[in-house]
Amino acid sequence: MIRGTTRLIAHVGYPTHTFKSPMIYNPWFQRRGIDAVVVPMGCKAEDYPQFIRLVFRLSNIQGALITMPHKTTTLAVADRVSVTARIAGAANALRLAEDGALEADMFDGEGFVRGVLGKGQALQDRAALVVGAGGVGSAIAASLARAGVARLALYDPNDGNAQALAARIAAAYPGIALQTGSNDPEGFDLVVNASPLGMNPDDPLPMDPERIDPATFVGEVVLKSEITPLLAAARARGCRYQIGTDMLFEQIPAYLEYFGFPKPSVAELRESAAISY
Amino acid sequence: MIRGTTRLIAHVGYPTHTFKSPMIYNPWFQRRGIDAVVVPMGCKAEDYPQFIRLVFRLSNIQGALITMPHKTTTLAVADRVSVTARIAGAANALRLAEDGALEADMFDGEGFVRGVLGKGQALQDRAALVVGAGGVGSAIAASLARAGVARLALYDPNDGNAQALAARIAAAYPGIALQTGSNDPEGFDLVVNASPLGMNPDDPLPMDPERIDPATFVGEVVLKSEITPLLAAARARGCRYQIGTDMLFEQIPAYLEYFGFPKPSVAELRESAAISY
Repeated sequence: MIRGTTRLIAHVGYPTHTFKSPMIYNPWFQRRGIDAVVVPMGCKAEDYPQFIRLVFRLSNIQGALITMPHKTTTLAVADRVSVTARIAGAANALRLAEDGALEADMFDGEGFVRGVLGKGQALQDRAALVVGAGGVGSAIAASLARAGVARLALYDPNDGNAQALAARIAAAYPGIALQTGSNDPEGFDLVVNASPLGMNPDDPLPMDPERIDPATFVGEVVLKSEITPLLAAARARGCRYQIGTDMLFEQIPAYLEYFGFPKPSVAELRESAAISY
Repeated sequence: MIRGTTRLIAHVGYPTHTFKSPMIYNPWFQRRGIDAVVVPMGCKAEDYPQFIRLVFRLSNIQGALITMPHKTTTLAVADRVSVTARIAGAANALRLAEDGALEADMFDGEGFVRGVLGKGQALQDRAALVVGAGGVGSAIAASLARAGVARLALYDPNDGNAQALAARIAAAYPGIALQTGSNDPEGFDLVVNASPLGMNPDDPLPMDPERIDPATFVGEVVLKSEITPLLAAARARGCRYQIGTDMLFEQIPAYLEYFGFPKPSVAELRESAAISY
């Protein structure tokens, strides 16, 4: 129930018709009796920098969920950008700090990492391969670095992308052993497909599943089907794995904590959500 | 249920904690299956002109309900201002016209007039007295002029206010006989208290009830109690009357039509509202 005291979470992007967050957050707020609401705002790129600054001057603003096409621009709009968002080259959350500064962070990779940790796969001092150094791959790599991996291999068909990402990670986390140029999954505790491969039926696999050890944990970001060809191959080899939508649901508690709300369980969120994945 | 397709009605004012509209409009939208939501936005005066222009560039904006302290500023922000809002010197609704212009209108007086007409009191070619030429008095006078009264008396303790309002009405409606300087209710079909008198227990009456004819319809804007001392006196004389909250509820169908929604009955709105008046 929206009332005069309701705290506002602006869900800013364009177009808005595919937004799912209001149907996940709002039923949970209602269930918990939290006086807050997520509201879609279809802001176009040319208006965004000015609009978002004014949104954060509203007396009832609690935070903002930022999506396409504003994730990159948000870095320039914020007064303060987290290390993770800086490495990812993008942010998807904004809040006001206690000193009034506008802070940006990025939770795509955090969602991935929380899901993996929640499934019992340790990351501290482990070795990980991320295939795809675009937006989501950069976010996942940034969060894996933050989670304490000792070795991180980054692969992109355009090796320059992987090298640039590696340089950003090296600057923030000088202790991590970084490598680029290979998508060979052999010898990693965790391998991730963060490329679009698997969205189309004719796509090649993002890596050679024959070289994935059964003890390796396999992560996927493609949402097209729950079990992508990569995950099917990994499952056949006996690997543990994480499906694409887990990354989305797992990042919601992170967002909510960031905005100052109590932390829900993912099970609770899935239960109250007005959509199914 | 807010989703990605939901149309947004910005409820803009500061502070927001006393806002009631979300609890009237939103339950009605839900009941009717209309995919729209009224959202409070606590915008401060210094940010308003810039903010409201950007709000109307959102792809999912449907309209705005404007309240304190922005009602006067809205005239300067809009590209096009209705005659009623111009006379009232204030606006409480904004929408985009088909040509993309930002249009402002004022429904406080319209709510009053709809209530009076709905109670069977004709206004066309009739005589009315409005006591109080401030914001709400000006809005009511503007709407009475629009409703076709033939004679309109305006009274304010500061006669300059009443004269200025009369001049604005005369410019738009040259056929109306206007007078100022007296709050004598004798000889009118309708008399209205649009002053704050009645909010405090020690207030004098806004006009002399002994001189109100039993056939005269008496309107009130004070919300403090349902039956104010003026209405009690009018009722004792056998007058028909309208209480203050009727003006608020009666203007909602006008707003909804203005924003392009189907028109509800006031009874339906009162029934679905999550607050009682």
